[in-house]
Amino acid sequence: MGEEVEAQMKRIEATKGVIGTLVVDPDGVPIRSTLDQSMTLQYAGQLRQLVVLARSAVRDIDPQNDLSALRVRSKSNEIIVVTENNYLVIGIQKLPEPDVSMGMETGSPLGLEYPGWLQKE
Amino acid sequence: MGEEVEAQMKRIEATKGVIGTLVVDPDGVPIRSTLDQSMTLQYAGQLRQLVVLARSAVRDIDPQNDLSALRVRSKSNEIIVVTENNYLVIGIQKLPEPDVSMGMETGSPLGLEYPGWLQKE
Repeated sequence: MGEEVEAQMKRIEATKGVIGTLVVDPDGVPIRSTLDQSMTLQYAGQLRQLVVLARSAVRDIDPQNDLSALRVRSKSNEIIVVTENNYLVIGIQKLPEPDVSMGMETGSPLGLEYPGWLQKE
Repeated sequence: MGEEVEAQMKRIEATKGVIGTLVVDPDGVPIRSTLDQSMTLQYAGQLRQLVVLARSAVRDIDPQNDLSALRVRSKSNEIIVVTENNYLVIGIQKLPEPDVSMGMETGSPLGLEYPGWLQKE
């Protein structure tokens, strides 16, 4: 996973508005992070729980299916979590301020795209 | 919520690739759905649980913040859940087949945009 994860993190970090990235290994241990230690542990713990429940929801609905990504949008930011071999690659993107945006009020999708390798599956 | 929810559902239904929509009221009861009864109950139950956990994760990280939307992407589809006054407006979008897509392998975002009113907050 090493080089591939590094490349994904760099790609996510280069995206406009991204304020943090982290990678969590299959044991739940954050192995890369641009956040401070306290935030890293908080994000890793919360998102891991959420991924476990989301995966179980997807499989309950269709046992042949599996989770590939999760996006959690809040008032101030959007977190994207991509799952790959039980690793979590996480990016946190600040939302554009509605007041200063131009044309953003008509439902434009966010700028943070899914990593390219997710589309190749 | 009545007319607003109907309008949102119509907008989501008109989106390319959308194969189902449902609305769940604050008590967890599906009040509109284009899916059959069994699938409606399954989606409503699973996504409600997931929204509860996602909301608690967002608030644990920042008590001033709140969940506004959740997207669950799997191998075959993407579910978007928008929360509004504890109602859940849910759309299920089939993913384009990688084999027949043109230029989709480079990380294009999906066509299912967030509803316009979400951007106006």
